[in-house]
Amino acid sequence: MLSVADEPITRGPRPRRYLRTTDPVEFSRTVAFSDGVFAIAMTLLVVTVNLPVHTSDKSLGHDLRELLPQVLAFFLSFAVIGRYWLAHHRFVGLVDGVNTRFLVWTLVYLAMIAFLPFSTAVFGDHPSVHAAVVLYAVNVAVISTLEVVLFVTAVRDGLFRHKLPPDVYRYSIGASLVPVAAFLLSIPVGLFSSEGAIAMWIATFASQPIVHRFKPPGADDYLS
Amino acid sequence: MLSVADEPITRGPRPRRYLRTTDPVEFSRTVAFSDGVFAIAMTLLVVTVNLPVHTSDKSLGHDLRELLPQVLAFFLSFAVIGRYWLAHHRFVGLVDGVNTRFLVWTLVYLAMIAFLPFSTAVFGDHPSVHAAVVLYAVNVAVISTLEVVLFVTAVRDGLFRHKLPPDVYRYSIGASLVPVAAFLLSIPVGLFSSEGAIAMWIATFASQPIVHRFKPPGADDYLS
Amino acid sequence: MLSVADEPITRGPRPRRYLRTTDPVEFSRTVAFSDGVFAIAMTLLVVTVNLPVHTSDKSLGHDLRELLPQVLAFFLSFAVIGRYWLAHHRFVGLVDGVNTRFLVWTLVYLAMIAFLPFSTAVFGDHPSVHAAVVLYAVNVAVISTLEVVLFVTAVRDGLFRHKLPPDVYRYSIGASLVPVAAFLLSIPVGLFSSEGAIAMWIATFASQPIVHRFKPPGADDYLS
Amino acid sequence: MLSVADEPITRGPRPRRYLRTTDPVEFSRTVAFSDGVFAIAMTLLVVTVNLPVHTSDKSLGHDLRELLPQVLAFFLSFAVIGRYWLAHHRFVGLVDGVNTRFLVWTLVYLAMIAFLPFSTAVFGDHPSVHAAVVLYAVNVAVISTLEVVLFVTAVRDGLFRHKLPPDVYRYSIGASLVPVAAFLLSIPVGLFSSEGAIAMWIATFASQPIVHRFKPPGADDYLS
Repeated sequence: MLSVADEPITRGPRPRRYLRTTDPVEFSRTVAFSDGVFAIAMTLLVVTVNLPVHTSDKSLGHDLRELLPQVLAFFLSFAVIGRYWLAHHRFVGLVDGVNTRFLVWTLVYLAMIAFLPFSTAVFGDHPSVHAAVVLYAVNVAVISTLEVVLFVTAVRDGLFRHKLPPDVYRYSIGASLVPVAAFLLSIPVGLFSSEGAIAMWIATFASQPIVHRFKPPGADDYLS
Repeated sequence: MLSVADEPITRGPRPRRYLRTTDPVEFSRTVAFSDGVFAIAMTLLVVTVNLPVHTSDKSLGHDLRELLPQVLAFFLSFAVIGRYWLAHHRFVGLVDGVNTRFLVWTLVYLAMIAFLPFSTAVFGDHPSVHAAVVLYAVNVAVISTLEVVLFVTAVRDGLFRHKLPPDVYRYSIGASLVPVAAFLLSIPVGLFSSEGAIAMWIATFASQPIVHRFKPPGADDYLS
Repeated sequence: MLSVADEPITRGPRPRRYLRTTDPVEFSRTVAFSDGVFAIAMTLLVVTVNLPVHTSDKSLGHDLRELLPQVLAFFLSFAVIGRYWLAHHRFVGLVDGVNTRFLVWTLVYLAMIAFLPFSTAVFGDHPSVHAAVVLYAVNVAVISTLEVVLFVTAVRDGLFRHKLPPDVYRYSIGASLVPVAAFLLSIPVGLFSSEGAIAMWIATFASQPIVHRFKPPGADDYLS
Repeated sequence: MLSVADEPITRGPRPRRYLRTTDPVEFSRTVAFSDGVFAIAMTLLVVTVNLPVHTSDKSLGHDLRELLPQVLAFFLSFAVIGRYWLAHHRFVGLVDGVNTRFLVWTLVYLAMIAFLPFSTAVFGDHPSVHAAVVLYAVNVAVISTLEVVLFVTAVRDGLFRHKLPPDVYRYSIGASLVPVAAFLLSIPVGLFSSEGAIAMWIATFASQPIVHRFKPPGADDYLS
């Protein structure tokens, strides 16, 4: 009754077209799944803004102003995850397919993205406490590190549509390592001043046009 | 071992087909991601309706009736986000591709959509407090303003499939600015009466057929 | 600088291919958006199961058993929304396109789907209180009513790929009205016994094979 | 006015192309919907990590360290759901279409995936309590059992693109039953030591390369 063949089959012409890396459905599923995690993590961030529940009508305006650090943490994290989504978006546009190793690293990467709402909530509640700064900075630094891992995996396993010239390869790795360094450096800075650490974070993403100046000529043909 | 070319490559025929604005996969990813944020924000709204947890079985009916403002705020916000989704849906149907600038503005726009569940919760908890009315009205007015920004960006960067005639362009900007004006005007009205402000909000969306009367003849060929 | 044409354009050959009902991208967006709301509402249901937070390690087993009504409400509602998703899935497979009226009704329908986690939570917390039974029954009855509205809208606006024979049309409306009637009838039953009302709900969905016996011969060619 | 045909239609050439199993839109909807539930369940897991709300700034570092079991439970469950997503991903890549029976079992499977954030939260709150270990182990064992059910359903209903040779079929069933056995066996182990049970869980997934050694030669042509 089962559609299982009754006799051992001599496996003559093997269905080689099944190779995962060339299956477009599987590829688009990975992309859609990643986008889902990004979109949900970004939208869930709003839950990190506490509702002023035990407030009287009179003090609502005042209580809302007290929530300002949480609201700013919401927008900061929305921008941070959004920036990673944009980079992921651009990166996946260069790639031709996925294999299991790439999928596993993608899941690790997405786990750290999905964890960011927690780090954001802790940081929004205690913006001037060093432990909260450390948690947030480490979370973002790990995400940027995994971005490098995904990039190197894609290069090693030949997932890119076109071979990257070595200068383009080095530039790409370097550009992804800048946020890793900046967020790790912000940890000792945060010991003295939370504002200083936050300023470093914003500066890191705001200074990307400067990083782009080191782009080798013609790299855009490969990277965008 | 890496699939990076060992020697600097003379970049002869550049892979110009990579131009972001014409890549259909990238385009559909943006659309799917936006839809994800819309869908999650709309569904998360239900979390803004407080559960009557500390209620006895006897008083449940009464307690549920007390939640009516929150339930109405849920449906109001579902309709508001739904209306923006419909407009976004129609707008993206006219566009041929996306570029980075458009993506960045889309993320800003989606951040304000994702924030609406918070504004809704505050407003549902304190419907008669002016600070809650201001928060909600500003949130919606900013979303409508960003709708205009997205529209102008798409026109400036040539993302529309067809050049828009100037009267159609002016009409589109005007139609998007009506909610901006109405929600900002509702703020002083809310000082005297929350009900008045809410009535203005509902009237704004209910009066869209009137706005449509100013549509230039033939505009539907471009806008729908 | 704008890509807006400088002179009024004589709109000769109008781009009639823009007609919304035939645009496949727009259609698939609607479907993806609906699926998003379904998936989120179903997954959010788990939030309706209270965590036993203020429990000692010793009493955890006992406290988990006390949560059983909430766990059953989770699975009941997962099955209910899943059943509507299956029906929506089958329905949309018959349809060729969407128009604005259909989209608006779809949004109303999805609002009631998105509201079900609230009704589920209230019902799981107070399974033997009549107000909770009424809330849940009305929510489901409204969803089934909107299913009929969507079906009739699709028929009226010619969205079906094939004209439906009148017997198939009548059967489809009837099959959707069965849950409306059953859930409304369960409200007075719930006055005397919550268990009776719940039994009616389960019976309604379990008895669908009986409803299928009234299917006109050949209807499957149109409805599946 | 309705687009319903006025007279009973002689159903001559039946539109046999409607057969659900071959409709690509319906198939991709099922896949997208499943991915949605996976992505949401994985991202919702972060909500299971309690925020240290009632903490002073001073004790934040200490309080965060106390949350470590919850953070580990988050990453454990992210890996567990991710592993099932990878398996589902691979499985669906082998399948040609879906029928109603397969969809219903998929919904049951997804219900157990959607329930895992609850089991994770209970387990993260009480990692050394046997009731929490039992809840978590049963939840995962049921998911693996349903994986077998989905596989057998797909074979019985002829949904696979290629007939599976019997040794490949037996291997696939066996490989899915390993986690079922391991998680059920961890329940008595957990009576004596929670750490022992957790070690068994991690060992189960870490030992998959060993299971792969029993793969019949050539099975990869069918299973990947």
